[in-house]
Amino acid sequence: MPRWEAGAQSRLTRAAYELYIERGFDQVTVAEIAERAGLTKRTFFRYFDDKREVLFAGAPAMQDAVVDAVATSPEHVAPIDAVVAALAAAGSGITQIGEGAKARQRLIESSSDLREREMIKMVALKDAIGVALQTRGVPASGADLTAQAGVAVFQTAFERWAHSDGPADFPSLMYEALDELRAAIHPASMDASRHPPGTSPVRARWN
Amino acid sequence: MPRWEAGAQSRLTRAAYELYIERGFDQVTVAEIAERAGLTKRTFFRYFDDKREVLFAGAPAMQDAVVDAVATSPEHVAPIDAVVAALAAAGSGITQIGEGAKARQRLIESSSDLREREMIKMVALKDAIGVALQTRGVPASGADLTAQAGVAVFQTAFERWAHSDGPADFPSLMYEALDELRAAIHPASMDASRHPPGTSPVRARWN
Repeated sequence: MPRWEAGAQSRLTRAAYELYIERGFDQVTVAEIAERAGLTKRTFFRYFDDKREVLFAGAPAMQDAVVDAVATSPEHVAPIDAVVAALAAAGSGITQIGEGAKARQRLIESSSDLREREMIKMVALKDAIGVALQTRGVPASGADLTAQAGVAVFQTAFERWAHSDGPADFPSLMYEALDELRAAIHPASMDASRHPPGTSPVRARWN
Repeated sequence: MPRWEAGAQSRLTRAAYELYIERGFDQVTVAEIAERAGLTKRTFFRYFDDKREVLFAGAPAMQDAVVDAVATSPEHVAPIDAVVAALAAAGSGITQIGEGAKARQRLIESSSDLREREMIKMVALKDAIGVALQTRGVPASGADLTAQAGVAVFQTAFERWAHSDGPADFPSLMYEALDELRAAIHPASMDASRHPPGTSPVRARWN
Protein backbone atom coordinates (compact mmCIF):
# COMPACT_ATOMS: atom_id res chain seq x y z
CA MET A 1 0.00 0.00 0.00
CA PRO A 2 1.29 3.47 -0.77
CA ARG A 3 2.25 5.66 2.17
CA TRP A 4 0.23 8.80 2.79
CA GLU A 5 2.81 10.95 0.96
CA ALA A 6 2.56 8.80 -2.15
CA GLY A 7 2.81 11.03 -5.18
CA ALA A 8 3.48 14.00 -2.92
CA GLN A 9 5.91 15.62 -5.33
CA SER A 10 3.59 15.45 -8.31
CA ARG A 11 0.57 16.54 -6.21
CA LEU A 12 2.55 19.55 -4.98
CA THR A 13 3.74 20.33 -8.51
CA ARG A 14 0.21 20.16 -9.91
CA ALA A 15 -1.18 22.28 -7.08
CA ALA A 16 1.58 24.89 -7.56
CA TYR A 17 0.99 25.17 -11.30
CA GLU A 18 -2.77 25.53 -10.79
CA LEU A 19 -2.33 28.29 -8.23
CA TYR A 20 0.40 30.12 -10.17
CA ILE A 21 -1.80 30.17 -13.26
CA GLU A 22 -4.94 31.16 -11.35
CA ARG A 23 -3.45 33.95 -9.21
CA GLY A 24 -0.05 34.78 -10.65
CA PHE A 25 3.24 33.45 -9.27
CA ASP A 26 3.90 36.33 -6.87
CA GLN A 27 0.49 35.96 -5.20
CA VAL A 28 0.92 32.34 -4.11
CA THR A 29 2.45 31.10 -0.83
CA VAL A 30 3.98 27.72 -0.03
CA ALA A 31 1.27 27.22 2.60
CA GLU A 32 -1.42 27.61 -0.06
CA ILE A 33 0.31 25.13 -2.37
CA ALA A 34 0.58 22.57 0.42
CA GLU A 35 -3.07 23.09 1.37
CA ARG A 36 -4.30 22.66 -2.19
CA ALA A 37 -2.27 19.43 -2.42
CA GLY A 38 -3.66 18.22 0.91
CA LEU A 39 -0.17 18.15 2.41
CA THR A 40 1.87 20.16 4.90
CA LYS A 41 4.42 22.94 4.33
CA ARG A 42 6.99 20.62 5.85
CA THR A 43 6.32 18.05 3.14
CA PHE A 44 6.67 20.78 0.52
CA PHE A 45 10.14 21.65 1.80
CA ARG A 46 11.17 18.00 1.69
CA TYR A 47 10.86 18.21 -2.09
CA PHE A 48 11.56 21.85 -2.98
CA ASP A 49 13.84 24.57 -1.60
CA ASP A 50 11.30 27.30 -2.35
CA LYS A 51 8.26 28.00 -4.50
CA ARG A 52 10.40 28.86 -7.53
CA GLU A 53 12.09 25.45 -7.56
CA VAL A 54 8.79 23.71 -8.39
CA LEU A 55 9.26 24.99 -11.95
CA PHE A 56 12.90 23.87 -12.20
CA ALA A 57 12.77 20.40 -10.67
CA GLY A 58 13.64 18.84 -14.03
CA ALA A 59 16.69 21.02 -14.70
CA PRO A 60 19.40 18.76 -13.18
CA ALA A 61 18.23 15.71 -15.14
CA MET A 62 18.16 17.70 -18.38
CA GLN A 63 21.63 19.10 -17.70
CA ASP A 64 23.01 15.62 -17.01
CA ALA A 65 21.51 14.26 -20.22
CA VAL A 66 22.91 17.11 -22.33
CA VAL A 67 26.36 16.86 -20.74
CA ASP A 68 26.37 13.09 -21.28
CA ALA A 69 25.41 13.45 -24.93
CA VAL A 70 28.11 16.08 -25.53
CA ALA A 71 30.82 14.14 -23.68
CA THR A 72 30.09 10.90 -25.53
CA SER A 73 29.50 12.27 -29.03
CA PRO A 74 31.90 10.78 -31.62
CA GLU A 75 35.19 12.60 -32.04
CA HIS A 76 34.61 13.45 -35.70
CA VAL A 77 31.52 15.51 -34.80
CA ALA A 78 32.37 19.23 -34.56
CA PRO A 79 31.89 20.61 -31.00
CA ILE A 80 29.12 23.03 -32.01
CA ASP A 81 27.25 20.22 -33.78
CA ALA A 82 27.54 17.99 -30.72
CA VAL A 83 26.16 20.76 -28.50
CA VAL A 84 23.30 21.69 -30.81
CA ALA A 85 22.33 18.03 -31.30
CA ALA A 86 22.27 17.42 -27.55
CA LEU A 87 20.22 20.54 -26.84
CA ALA A 88 17.88 19.78 -29.75
CA ALA A 89 17.22 16.34 -28.26
CA ALA A 90 16.57 17.76 -24.78
CA GLY A 91 14.35 20.47 -26.23
CA SER A 92 12.36 17.92 -28.21
CA GLY A 93 11.63 16.18 -24.94
CA ILE A 94 10.37 19.37 -23.34
CA THR A 95 8.32 20.50 -26.32
CA GLN A 96 6.65 17.07 -26.54
CA ILE A 97 4.83 18.03 -23.33
CA GLY A 98 3.12 20.70 -25.41
CA GLU A 99 0.73 23.03 -23.60
CA GLY A 100 2.14 22.25 -20.15
CA ALA A 101 5.59 23.38 -21.25
CA LYS A 102 4.15 26.52 -22.84
CA ALA A 103 2.25 27.36 -19.64
CA ARG A 104 5.49 26.94 -17.69
CA GLN A 105 7.32 29.27 -20.08
CA ARG A 106 4.59 31.93 -19.76
CA LEU A 107 4.84 31.69 -15.97
CA ILE A 108 8.60 32.17 -16.07
CA GLU A 109 8.24 35.18 -18.34
CA SER A 110 5.63 36.70 -15.99
CA SER A 111 7.98 37.00 -12.98
CA SER A 112 11.37 38.69 -12.74
CA ASP A 113 12.20 36.29 -9.91
CA LEU A 114 11.59 33.30 -12.15
CA ARG A 115 13.36 34.86 -15.12
CA GLU A 116 16.40 35.35 -12.90
CA ARG A 117 16.29 31.75 -11.71
CA GLU A 118 15.95 30.53 -15.32
CA MET A 119 18.93 32.66 -16.33
CA ILE A 120 21.05 31.14 -13.56
CA LYS A 121 20.06 27.62 -14.65
CA MET A 122 21.01 28.46 -18.24
CA VAL A 123 24.43 29.75 -17.20
CA ALA A 124 24.95 26.58 -15.13
CA LEU A 125 23.98 24.52 -18.20
CA LYS A 126 26.40 26.53 -20.34
CA ASP A 127 29.22 25.99 -17.83
CA ALA A 128 28.52 22.25 -17.66
CA ILE A 129 28.52 21.97 -21.46
CA GLY A 130 31.82 23.88 -21.54
CA VAL A 131 33.38 21.38 -19.14
CA ALA A 132 32.03 18.46 -21.20
CA LEU A 133 33.61 19.95 -24.33
CA GLN A 134 36.93 20.26 -22.52
CA THR A 135 36.84 16.54 -21.70
CA ARG A 136 36.57 16.06 -25.47
CA GLY A 137 39.79 18.03 -25.87
CA VAL A 138 38.36 21.44 -26.80
CA PRO A 139 40.49 24.24 -25.26
CA ALA A 140 38.79 26.09 -22.38
CA SER A 141 38.03 29.41 -24.07
CA GLY A 142 36.76 27.85 -27.30
CA ALA A 143 34.69 25.44 -25.23
CA ASP A 144 33.03 28.30 -23.39
CA LEU A 145 32.24 30.25 -26.56
CA THR A 146 30.83 27.13 -28.23
CA ALA A 147 28.70 26.37 -25.16
CA GLN A 148 27.46 29.97 -25.05
CA ALA A 149 26.52 29.86 -28.71
CA GLY A 150 24.68 26.56 -28.23
CA VAL A 151 22.70 27.81 -25.25
CA ALA A 152 21.86 31.10 -27.01
CA VAL A 153 20.52 29.12 -29.96
CA PHE A 154 18.55 26.87 -27.61
CA GLN A 155 16.95 29.83 -25.84
CA THR A 156 16.02 31.48 -29.12
CA ALA A 157 14.49 28.28 -30.48
CA PHE A 158 12.63 27.61 -27.25
CA GLU A 159 11.11 31.09 -27.06
CA ARG A 160 9.94 30.77 -30.65
CA TRP A 161 8.40 27.42 -29.94
CA ALA A 162 6.68 28.67 -26.78
CA HIS A 163 5.08 31.55 -28.66
CA SER A 164 4.09 29.52 -31.72
CA ASP A 165 0.77 27.83 -32.34
CA GLY A 166 0.50 24.09 -32.53
CA PRO A 167 3.33 21.56 -32.48
CA ALA A 168 6.72 22.37 -33.90
CA ASP A 169 9.76 20.41 -34.95
CA PHE A 170 12.14 21.63 -32.24
CA PRO A 171 15.41 20.48 -33.86
CA SER A 172 14.43 22.45 -37.00
CA LEU A 173 13.93 25.56 -34.87
CA MET A 174 17.39 24.98 -33.37
CA TYR A 175 19.12 24.63 -36.73
CA GLU A 176 17.26 27.67 -38.04
CA ALA A 177 18.49 29.74 -35.07
CA LEU A 178 22.03 28.39 -35.51
CA ASP A 179 22.00 29.49 -39.14
CA GLU A 180 20.79 32.92 -38.06
CA LEU A 181 23.54 33.21 -35.48
CA ARG A 182 26.10 32.26 -38.12
CA ALA A 183 24.70 34.85 -40.51
CA ALA A 184 24.54 37.48 -37.75
CA ILE A 185 28.23 37.23 -36.88
CA HIS A 186 29.52 36.53 -40.38
CA PRO A 187 32.26 38.99 -41.41
CA ALA A 188 30.65 41.46 -43.81
CA SER A 189 33.64 41.32 -46.17
CA MET A 190 33.15 37.58 -46.59
CA ASP A 191 29.38 37.73 -46.68
CA ALA A 192 28.34 34.81 -48.85
CA SER A 193 25.13 36.58 -49.86
CA ARG A 194 27.20 39.20 -51.66
CA HIS A 195 29.21 36.59 -53.53
CA PRO A 196 27.09 33.53 -54.26
CA PRO A 197 29.18 30.41 -55.01
CA GLY A 198 30.90 30.64 -58.37
CA THR A 199 30.59 34.42 -58.64
CA SER A 200 33.22 35.52 -56.12
CA PRO A 201 35.76 37.96 -57.58
CA VAL A 202 38.59 35.54 -56.88
CA ARG A 203 37.08 32.52 -58.52
CA ALA A 204 35.49 34.48 -61.34
CA ARG A 205 38.92 35.06 -62.84
CA TRP A 206 39.21 31.35 -63.54
CA ASN A 207 35.74 30.78 -64.91
CA MET B 1 32.38 75.00 0.76
CA PRO B 2 31.66 71.30 0.36
CA ARG B 3 29.02 69.78 2.63
CA TRP B 4 30.17 67.19 5.18
CA GLU B 5 29.24 64.31 2.89
CA ALA B 6 31.56 65.68 0.19
CA GLY B 7 33.11 62.78 -1.65
CA ALA B 8 30.95 60.39 0.35
CA GLN B 9 30.35 58.03 -2.56
CA SER B 10 34.02 57.69 -3.45
CA ARG B 11 35.02 57.39 0.22
CA LEU B 12 32.48 54.59 0.67
CA THR B 13 33.64 52.90 -2.52
CA ARG B 14 37.28 53.03 -1.48
CA ALA B 15 36.49 51.75 2.02
CA ALA B 16 34.39 48.89 0.60
CA TYR B 17 37.13 47.78 -1.81
CA GLU B 18 39.73 47.87 0.95
CA LEU B 19 37.60 45.77 3.28
CA TYR B 20 36.48 43.32 0.58
CA ILE B 21 40.11 42.70 -0.41
CA GLU B 22 41.34 42.48 3.21
CA ARG B 23 38.64 40.15 4.56
CA GLY B 24 36.74 38.70 1.61
CA PHE B 25 33.44 40.05 0.32
CA ASP B 26 31.20 37.78 2.43
CA GLN B 27 32.91 38.81 5.69
CA VAL B 28 32.19 42.55 5.38
CA THR B 29 29.08 44.40 6.63
CA VAL B 30 27.67 47.74 5.49
CA ALA B 31 28.24 49.07 9.03
CA GLU B 32 31.94 48.30 8.72
CA ILE B 33 32.20 49.99 5.35
CA ALA B 34 30.50 53.10 6.68
CA GLU B 35 32.74 53.14 9.75
CA ARG B 36 35.92 52.82 7.69
CA ALA B 37 34.73 55.71 5.52
CA GLY B 38 33.88 57.81 8.59
CA LEU B 39 30.22 57.93 7.58
CA THR B 40 26.92 56.40 8.70
CA LYS B 41 25.05 53.36 7.39
CA ARG B 42 22.28 55.75 6.42
CA THR B 43 24.66 57.65 4.16
CA PHE B 44 25.77 54.35 2.61
CA PHE B 45 22.17 53.52 1.68
CA ARG B 46 21.72 56.95 0.10
CA TYR B 47 24.25 55.87 -2.53
CA PHE B 48 23.96 52.06 -2.76
CA ASP B 49 21.10 49.56 -2.44
CA ASP B 50 23.34 46.96 -0.82
CA LYS B 51 27.00 46.05 -0.44
CA ARG B 52 27.10 44.31 -3.82
CA GLU B 53 26.06 47.45 -5.66
CA VAL B 54 29.30 49.22 -4.72
CA LEU B 55 30.98 47.10 -7.39
CA PHE B 56 28.37 47.82 -10.06
CA ALA B 57 27.81 51.55 -9.65
CA GLY B 58 29.28 52.19 -13.11
CA ALA B 59 27.10 49.67 -14.95
CA PRO B 60 24.22 51.99 -15.98
CA ALA B 61 26.59 54.57 -17.48
CA MET B 62 28.45 51.89 -19.42
CA GLN B 63 25.20 50.39 -20.68
CA ASP B 64 23.96 53.81 -21.83
CA ALA B 65 27.21 54.49 -23.68
CA VAL B 66 27.16 51.12 -25.45
CA VAL B 67 23.51 51.45 -26.40
CA ASP B 68 24.13 54.97 -27.73
CA ALA B 69 27.08 53.83 -29.82
CA VAL B 70 25.10 50.92 -31.29
CA ALA B 71 22.00 53.00 -32.00
CA THR B 72 23.96 55.76 -33.74
CA SER B 73 26.46 53.65 -35.70
CA PRO B 74 26.28 54.27 -39.45
CA GLU B 75 23.80 52.13 -41.37
CA HIS B 76 26.45 50.50 -43.56
CA VAL B 77 28.14 48.98 -40.50
CA ALA B 78 27.04 45.37 -39.95
CA PRO B 79 25.12 44.93 -36.66
CA ILE B 80 27.72 42.56 -35.14
CA ASP B 81 30.50 45.04 -36.00
CA ALA B 82 28.58 47.91 -34.39
CA VAL B 83 28.07 45.86 -31.22
CA VAL B 84 31.68 44.65 -31.00
CA ALA B 85 33.05 48.15 -31.66
CA ALA B 86 30.85 49.65 -28.93
CA LEU B 87 31.78 46.97 -26.39
CA ALA B 88 35.46 47.21 -27.34
CA ALA B 89 35.35 50.94 -26.64
CA ALA B 90 33.62 50.46 -23.29
CA GLY B 91 36.03 47.67 -22.35
CA SER B 92 39.02 49.84 -23.25
CA GLY B 93 37.75 52.37 -20.76
CA ILE B 94 37.51 49.76 -18.02
CA THR B 95 40.85 48.14 -18.75
CA GLN B 96 42.58 51.55 -18.71
CA ILE B 97 41.99 51.53 -14.96
CA GLY B 98 44.38 48.59 -14.83
CA GLU B 99 44.98 46.97 -11.47
CA GLY B 100 41.83 48.41 -9.89
CA ALA B 101 39.69 46.78 -12.57
CA LYS B 102 41.54 43.48 -12.15
CA ALA B 103 41.02 43.58 -8.39
CA ARG B 104 37.31 44.17 -8.98
CA GLN B 105 37.14 41.20 -11.34
CA ARG B 106 38.88 38.92 -8.81
CA LEU B 107 36.39 40.04 -6.16
CA ILE B 108 33.45 39.23 -8.41
CA GLU B 109 34.88 35.79 -9.18
CA SER B 110 35.36 35.12 -5.46
CA SER B 111 31.67 35.34 -4.53
CA SER B 112 28.71 33.47 -6.02
CA ASP B 113 26.52 36.39 -4.95
CA LEU B 114 28.62 38.81 -6.99
CA ARG B 115 28.89 36.46 -9.95
CA GLU B 116 25.11 36.25 -9.97
CA ARG B 117 24.77 40.04 -9.90
CA GLU B 118 27.34 40.38 -12.70
CA MET B 119 25.43 37.83 -14.76
CA ILE B 120 22.19 39.78 -14.32
CA LYS B 121 23.91 43.01 -15.40
CA MET B 122 25.28 41.27 -18.48
CA VAL B 123 21.85 39.98 -19.47
CA ALA B 124 20.43 43.49 -18.99
CA LEU B 125 23.23 44.85 -21.21
CA LYS B 126 22.46 42.18 -23.82
CA ASP B 127 18.75 43.06 -23.77
CA ALA B 128 19.49 46.78 -24.10
CA ILE B 129 21.84 46.16 -27.05
CA GLY B 130 19.14 44.00 -28.66
CA VAL B 131 16.64 46.86 -28.39
CA ALA B 132 19.20 49.31 -29.82
CA LEU B 133 19.74 47.01 -32.81
CA GLN B 134 16.00 46.85 -33.39
CA THR B 135 15.88 50.64 -33.60
CA ARG B 136 18.44 50.25 -36.40
CA GLY B 137 15.97 47.98 -38.20
CA VAL B 138 17.40 44.58 -37.23
CA PRO B 139 14.55 42.06 -36.70
CA ALA B 140 13.99 41.09 -33.05
CA SER B 141 15.35 37.54 -33.06
CA GLY B 142 18.44 38.40 -35.10
CA ALA B 143 19.01 41.40 -32.85
CA ASP B 144 18.95 39.21 -29.75
CA LEU B 145 21.35 36.63 -31.20
CA THR B 146 23.74 39.36 -32.34
CA ALA B 147 23.61 41.00 -28.91
CA GLN B 148 24.22 37.65 -27.20
CA ALA B 149 27.21 36.97 -29.43
CA GLY B 150 28.63 40.43 -28.73
CA VAL B 151 28.27 40.11 -24.96
CA ALA B 152 29.74 36.57 -24.99
CA VAL B 153 32.75 37.90 -26.89
CA PHE B 154 33.07 40.80 -24.45
CA GLN B 155 32.99 38.50 -21.42
CA THR B 156 35.60 36.18 -22.93
CA ALA B 157 37.90 39.09 -23.79
CA PHE B 158 37.45 40.67 -20.39
CA GLU B 159 38.24 37.49 -18.47
CA ARG B 160 41.38 37.03 -20.55
CA TRP B 161 42.43 40.58 -19.89
CA ALA B 162 41.76 40.26 -16.14
CA HIS B 163 43.95 37.16 -15.91
CA SER B 164 46.76 38.48 -18.10
CA ASP B 165 49.91 40.25 -16.95
CA GLY B 166 50.53 43.86 -17.84
CA PRO B 167 48.46 46.06 -20.11
CA ALA B 168 46.56 44.66 -23.06
CA ASP B 169 44.99 46.04 -26.18
CA PHE B 170 41.36 45.32 -25.29
CA PRO B 171 39.88 45.76 -28.78
CA SER B 172 42.39 43.19 -30.08
CA LEU B 173 41.25 40.74 -27.43
CA MET B 174 37.64 41.35 -28.54
CA TYR B 175 38.37 40.74 -32.22
CA GLU B 176 40.37 37.64 -31.34
CA ALA B 177 37.44 36.25 -29.34
CA LEU B 178 35.03 37.15 -32.16
CA ASP B 179 37.18 35.22 -34.63
CA GLU B 180 37.19 32.27 -32.25
CA LEU B 181 33.41 32.37 -31.91
CA ARG B 182 33.10 32.47 -35.69
CA ALA B 183 35.44 29.49 -36.02
CA ALA B 184 33.66 27.62 -33.22
CA ILE B 185 30.24 27.76 -34.87
CA HIS B 186 31.45 27.49 -38.47
CA PRO B 187 29.83 24.61 -40.36
CA ALA B 188 32.42 21.81 -40.42
CA SER B 189 31.94 21.24 -44.14
CA MET B 190 33.10 24.80 -44.85
CA ASP B 191 35.88 24.84 -42.24
CA ALA B 192 38.49 27.20 -43.67
CA SER B 193 41.23 25.76 -41.43
CA ARG B 194 41.03 22.49 -43.33
CA HIS B 195 41.60 24.29 -46.60
CA PRO B 196 44.01 27.21 -46.16
CA PRO B 197 43.71 29.87 -48.88
CA GLY B 198 45.10 28.65 -52.18
CA THR B 199 45.00 24.99 -51.25
CA SER B 200 41.25 24.37 -51.35
CA PRO B 201 40.31 21.49 -53.63
CA VAL B 202 38.18 23.82 -55.73
CA ARG B 203 40.80 26.45 -56.30
CA ALA B 204 43.70 24.01 -56.57
CA ARG B 205 42.35 22.85 -59.91
CA TRP B 206 43.15 26.26 -61.33
CA ASN B 207 46.57 26.75 -59.80
